[in-house]
Amino acid sequence: MLYHLFEYLRQQGADFSGIGLMQYISVRGIMGNITAIIIALLAGKKTIAFLQKKQIGEEIRNLGLEGQLAKKGTPTMGGLIIIFSLIIPTLLFCDLTNPNTLILLFTTVWLGFLGCMDDYIKVFKHNKDGLNGRFKIAGQVILGLVVGLALCFNEGLAFREGNAVKAPEATVQTASDSFVNIDGLESNAIMTTIPFVKDNEFNYAWLSPFKGKAGDIFSKIIYILVIIFIITACSNGANLTDGMDGLATGVTAIVGATLGILAYVSGHVGYADYFNIMFIEKSGDIAVFMMTLVGALLGFLWFNCYPAQIFMGDTGSLTLGGIVGVCALLIRKELLLPILCGIFLVESLSVIIQRYYFKYTKKKYGAGRRIFKMSPLHHHFQKENIDAAIQKPLRAHPEAKIVMRFYIVSMMLAVLTIITLKIR
Amino acid sequence: MLYHLFEYLRQQGADFSGIGLMQYISVRGIMGNITAIIIALLAGKKTIAFLQKKQIGEEIRNLGLEGQLAKKGTPTMGGLIIIFSLIIPTLLFCDLTNPNTLILLFTTVWLGFLGCMDDYIKVFKHNKDGLNGRFKIAGQVILGLVVGLALCFNEGLAFREGNAVKAPEATVQTASDSFVNIDGLESNAIMTTIPFVKDNEFNYAWLSPFKGKAGDIFSKIIYILVIIFIITACSNGANLTDGMDGLATGVTAIVGATLGILAYVSGHVGYADYFNIMFIEKSGDIAVFMMTLVGALLGFLWFNCYPAQIFMGDTGSLTLGGIVGVCALLIRKELLLPILCGIFLVESLSVIIQRYYFKYTKKKYGAGRRIFKMSPLHHHFQKENIDAAIQKPLRAHPEAKIVMRFYIVSMMLAVLTIITLKIR
Repeated sequence: MLYHLFEYLRQQGADFSGIGLMQYISVRGIMGNITAIIIALLAGKKTIAFLQKKQIGEEIRNLGLEGQLAKKGTPTMGGLIIIFSLIIPTLLFCDLTNPNTLILLFTTVWLGFLGCMDDYIKVFKHNKDGLNGRFKIAGQVILGLVVGLALCFNEGLAFREGNAVKAPEATVQTASDSFVNIDGLESNAIMTTIPFVKDNEFNYAWLSPFKGKAGDIFSKIIYILVIIFIITACSNGANLTDGMDGLATGVTAIVGATLGILAYVSGHVGYADYFNIMFIEKSGDIAVFMMTLVGALLGFLWFNCYPAQIFMGDTGSLTLGGIVGVCALLIRKELLLPILCGIFLVESLSVIIQRYYFKYTKKKYGAGRRIFKMSPLHHHFQKENIDAAIQKPLRAHPEAKIVMRFYIVSMMLAVLTIITLKIR
Repeated sequence: MLYHLFEYLRQQGADFSGIGLMQYISVRGIMGNITAIIIALLAGKKTIAFLQKKQIGEEIRNLGLEGQLAKKGTPTMGGLIIIFSLIIPTLLFCDLTNPNTLILLFTTVWLGFLGCMDDYIKVFKHNKDGLNGRFKIAGQVILGLVVGLALCFNEGLAFREGNAVKAPEATVQTASDSFVNIDGLESNAIMTTIPFVKDNEFNYAWLSPFKGKAGDIFSKIIYILVIIFIITACSNGANLTDGMDGLATGVTAIVGATLGILAYVSGHVGYADYFNIMFIEKSGDIAVFMMTLVGALLGFLWFNCYPAQIFMGDTGSLTLGGIVGVCALLIRKELLLPILCGIFLVESLSVIIQRYYFKYTKKKYGAGRRIFKMSPLHHHFQKENIDAAIQKPLRAHPEAKIVMRFYIVSMMLAVLTIITLKIR
């Protein structure tokens, strides 16, 4: 809203120092980032004290891992801190008439509510399973439908087909000005960027066996199904990753920063041209939102890092995963997610593989066998370390180390994601 | 050297896929980054095993901090891993005819050698003080002289005075092309960027009371003294910061990434214009070098993070601090260092304040008093936590948390540093 106030004042001809700065995506992003960190730091301390007093602690499942019971009583639902310190700066610094902003805000509130219900049932009903799985999936599917329909039909979410064309020299004032005129039409065609490939645009319509009107409807249905799958996968992937102090927080911050860069690049004609990706005119506000998210996560990490004083709970993890998925969809980079969110992917795969292999071997040999010592994957490393720690006492606290190594892998994946755009 | 090979092939008219990519700073930077991580990961494991076998462990000073003696026997001189995995990709991907590359390589080798001597004496002579302080300072002063003289007299390190001028439309091919022609002359004038201020260039010559030839010599002497001070301060600041698992490694990675971005921006006419900072034509290779440094640090952090399997030793910390200082000087951003390297600064200040306050109170009251429970600052927080841990057993392992919080503060400082360029 500060953004709108400044815009209004500027149009009225006001001209005090800094009034023009609000136009810049970079300035708004950094302001959002700093504001979010500050809010999270301020809100965090009080929220933790409040939750501790109300004894809103997580029920710790005893997995037989050393140091785990020490976590009993650590308050959960810390995702509320993230959501709070994400929404306030977004309202201040984002363009609220931009449909991208509205979709991201809707995602945050919707999944935040869903996760909050889940945590509420876990904490107050002392029901370890939380919300019935069917409700969770239903919530994610509804979100997918909303996002899918918006991407198919909202003109504000369109990208421009065709290439950027340089403006005549007379009008060029700054580097970005040199691309004011864009050739090609606004389009809601259901296309996306493919990594590694030279002619790098994929049109979901190609999957449709029909032509004409029927083909159009068919491909839109496929697209919406893909969207539902991506949102559900991301949301649950983040949920599974959230099992160690600071793990989901830090990994999402790295992923979020990368998506923020991609959104910034997509929204800038010159850079979009340089990286040969789609120019999505209004994606600048997505960059502001993601920078703000990174701030909120860093602020939350202050309390969430090992040894954690608070957990994000499903309130946090479901929401974060959903935001990541929706953001990637909005900037048409969803096919980069398997690389960028590699951590979410392998965590999910480790659970699926473990479960099916166990069932399969139980059927075949009578006794179930395991591939990992424990799943999700981070517990496998933890168990391995604890088993090895009998010889080497220094390695008895591996949690901080495992988390840091997941961060490092995450950063490598982020760098790889960006280079796929240039190397092809 | 791979860079030179590709350039040679390109000039010979070779045209295979990817040959043009080597021209891009971004591609070379990312290649350097990835190569450095891989080398560090591969070299790390073997080096640790080797050092452990040779028992090149650090003599741990007993500061009465819990868990500290567990660190005894952890090998040191891990800085060698960083230096090794920094130099190899630099030789491969940097332009070795660029004086910036040569100065940075010289800094790395020179300070690496100095730190290595220091560690060698500590480890093999079992002398906890290491190299005589006078030799360390002498080494840093010599480096300062070399860098200072190069900045004053080497034309390859010049920046362009005056503003960028747009090229006529006919020649414009890409966004960066639109600025090919630069107004203004190449200059070795001893200027630097001041944060926060609108007319943001400071000329060291203004400090000189003399005019003409004498003034020129006088201001150059001042400039070189400033350079010596900055290099010494950074190098020793990093050295003091290196007292907790992963602390100096992570903080330097964040600082290095920020300097890399600033170097990239300074070397690109369009961006330098956008941020209103000096255009330094050859600073692109500094960005490649810094990206490589970040990779080497992330790879090293894999082993160095809490609980550390190896320490960087003075081999690492003196070198890293020096590289940070020299890089900031090369891109004329040395006045941003107090913000960007705020962690190094407060760590150094905490030691100085503690020491002088103790001496002062001892003289005045007969008994020395302390402001911090312990210095450098990170030990103050550690002690505070251990004192508080008697009530709350979960907080008994604060090292990982303190380090993560220093990272978060470091990232906030990095964001602040970048925004000082835009908000003024």
